[in-house]
Amino acid sequence: MVEKPENFRKKGDVWIEWKGKGTLCAMKHPIYLDNAATTALSSEALEAMMPYLTESFGNPSSIYSIGRSTRVAIEMARKTVARALGVKPMSIFFTSCGTESNNTAILSAIRDLGCTSIITSPIEHHAVLHTANHYSRQYSLPLDMVALDEDGVVDYADLEHRLRQHQADGRKPLVSLMYANNEIGSLLDIQRVSQLCRVYGAIFHSDCVQAVAHYPIDLSGHPVHFISASGHKFHGPKGVGILYVNPSLEIAPLIHGGSQERNMRAGTENVYGIIGFAKALELAMEGYEADSRYIGGLRSRMRELLVRYVPGVRFNGTENGLYTVLSVCFPRSSRSESLLTEMDQAGICVSGGSACTSGEAGGSHVIRALANRDGCTTVRFSFSKYNTAEEIEYTVNFLRSVLSPEKAGVGA
Amino acid sequence: MVEKPENFRKKGDVWIEWKGKGTLCAMKHPIYLDNAATTALSSEALEAMMPYLTESFGNPSSIYSIGRSTRVAIEMARKTVARALGVKPMSIFFTSCGTESNNTAILSAIRDLGCTSIITSPIEHHAVLHTANHYSRQYSLPLDMVALDEDGVVDYADLEHRLRQHQADGRKPLVSLMYANNEIGSLLDIQRVSQLCRVYGAIFHSDCVQAVAHYPIDLSGHPVHFISASGHKFHGPKGVGILYVNPSLEIAPLIHGGSQERNMRAGTENVYGIIGFAKALELAMEGYEADSRYIGGLRSRMRELLVRYVPGVRFNGTENGLYTVLSVCFPRSSRSESLLTEMDQAGICVSGGSACTSGEAGGSHVIRALANRDGCTTVRFSFSKYNTAEEIEYTVNFLRSVLSPEKAGVGA
Repeated sequence: MVEKPENFRKKGDVWIEWKGKGTLCAMKHPIYLDNAATTALSSEALEAMMPYLTESFGNPSSIYSIGRSTRVAIEMARKTVARALGVKPMSIFFTSCGTESNNTAILSAIRDLGCTSIITSPIEHHAVLHTANHYSRQYSLPLDMVALDEDGVVDYADLEHRLRQHQADGRKPLVSLMYANNEIGSLLDIQRVSQLCRVYGAIFHSDCVQAVAHYPIDLSGHPVHFISASGHKFHGPKGVGILYVNPSLEIAPLIHGGSQERNMRAGTENVYGIIGFAKALELAMEGYEADSRYIGGLRSRMRELLVRYVPGVRFNGTENGLYTVLSVCFPRSSRSESLLTEMDQAGICVSGGSACTSGEAGGSHVIRALANRDGCTTVRFSFSKYNTAEEIEYTVNFLRSVLSPEKAGVGA
Repeated sequence: MVEKPENFRKKGDVWIEWKGKGTLCAMKHPIYLDNAATTALSSEALEAMMPYLTESFGNPSSIYSIGRSTRVAIEMARKTVARALGVKPMSIFFTSCGTESNNTAILSAIRDLGCTSIITSPIEHHAVLHTANHYSRQYSLPLDMVALDEDGVVDYADLEHRLRQHQADGRKPLVSLMYANNEIGSLLDIQRVSQLCRVYGAIFHSDCVQAVAHYPIDLSGHPVHFISASGHKFHGPKGVGILYVNPSLEIAPLIHGGSQERNMRAGTENVYGIIGFAKALELAMEGYEADSRYIGGLRSRMRELLVRYVPGVRFNGTENGLYTVLSVCFPRSSRSESLLTEMDQAGICVSGGSACTSGEAGGSHVIRALANRDGCTTVRFSFSKYNTAEEIEYTVNFLRSVLSPEKAGVGA
């Protein structure tokens, strides 16, 4: 997506391009550092989708050959996804997005599985928080928030305490906690939470939208009940997600109608979306070792350069959090207020928090939930395998030019 | 999609190809006569989608330029759709499919708009029937079925009678009736039903999945409350639909989470799907006059040839019904039982009913709801602008070869 910049010179640690005298110029192409918001569809995934965008257009529910061939393609995709997660194909359901998957899991846990309370965290994505809120009101169920440490990591002792409390109150909780936080990259010990939920008879849903395809996730023998994922977070297409449903559960659909997805999700299947999802996941798992090392290296490099060149910089989340996300707390100043705008103008794409909440008044609910984040201008940088070290260095140099202009471009 | 057949000779009224001696051969490409199930994505729609499948991948909720450009593209698409329907862009919401749109309308009418009963018909698509059934049970509401004439057309006097009855019972009904039936092509007088619903204080939803882009639908000044449509029914992409919501209504989402679609439908937008939907609708409306005449001509031609060559043939629905659908009742015989399979083997794609219900035990619920359909083998032929007269003639000749083999290929 982003080509290696031309006519850049190395100045100390950073690559910069000077056009005329002392003018820092935007790179020819945007520098896309918002891969937690969405990613570029990979050419391999698009290639896998193309037959289904052209000649193989049959309705997978149709009984004739061109329908059957798309049905077979969907079932092959389901197998690919199941294999990547170490589960049986029958436990994978294709949906229209991660949000729909989260909605289905939360509604089903309450409506079909008898959950009578919800435990979640204040830093979940709105796809979980707003949904949990909605159904807790509709069904008049208590909605409980687990405590977090200052890095946004779940306090497991607090979670166990709450589970015990709910049990004592005769309640069966739904626990919904995300694997990897989309804004600050804090990680959940999913195995530990699974075990706790098993002990206390809770249903466990994990929003894995930032984790699936970014970590090897083996759900075999794992007592998690639901996980959600979304194709466009790992170079797959938009408009497609999955919900893993533990085969021990029997649930009804969120969207009623035809018998698609074994009566679990009505509506003609988004065939190309499903094919692209599976292809992108397969590629991600094949490339996991190399890609995660490479992307983690970009993140470390950025962290290191920011510490070196931006006085007073801090980070949200832990250093060993999600390797694709670096949430940075810049000391608030007159320039920092307009940082996102200035970066946009310079062709650097980053965000203040989640894209889904970019219109939110009062800034990110995730950052607000963390202790000691006053005086911060938060910027989330998120990386993919298509980013380069040059982009990172260019970006840091740009930040220096804005935040401490007199020192920019001077190098180490 | 389907090329003009080569090496075919005209024999009387029908084009046929004889390979060797007296062997009727399948055409080189499948003959796709199941356009009510799904349609081929048009190359123009795909072309419009391609930038969003490649470089323009930004998240429309992101604030930087490549996010804003996809936001702008979505809003342009919304305007295109709104213009085609004669409504304001703010009344159009993009969803993942027609089924989701139907689900949203039905749930909202009950949950948000105070509907306390449902009136629908036994020949609605399962996306309406199963959903109405589900929510009538969940909310303990009466579910009432309007009477139909023997062609599957709504009995308006019966509808008014029921509306009056519900009013007398102190109920506010949701009326959900489809514009054009997907299996038999019967049409609704949507203006008349709108007026009736207004008089009796009912909420009116119309599943327009087979009608949008196939008829000019002007909703301006029309008291319909909700209509649903689906992109893949008119050479647009799968995985995208719309819900029109009358601006006088305030409803909550079916899928909760981020603030997409003005808080009405959470989840990252299927950008390419939306772009493709709008492009396909725009093309359909531009080509309406010519295309509908051409497609209606194919349907008439097929009807005429079947009457001429298949003794005892009858038709479901009225002659002046939906011009894209011809539902045929072949006299049941030993050969008619395997008709769909034989047509599939001959490369002719048709269906017994709705693709979404192709696994349904006991055949189509729509056909079962019609009077005097015993002894019928029902086949639905549905046409698009990509079909040709040669395909129709080839198909009829094939049917003759199966149903009255001694006469096939002999001509008029």
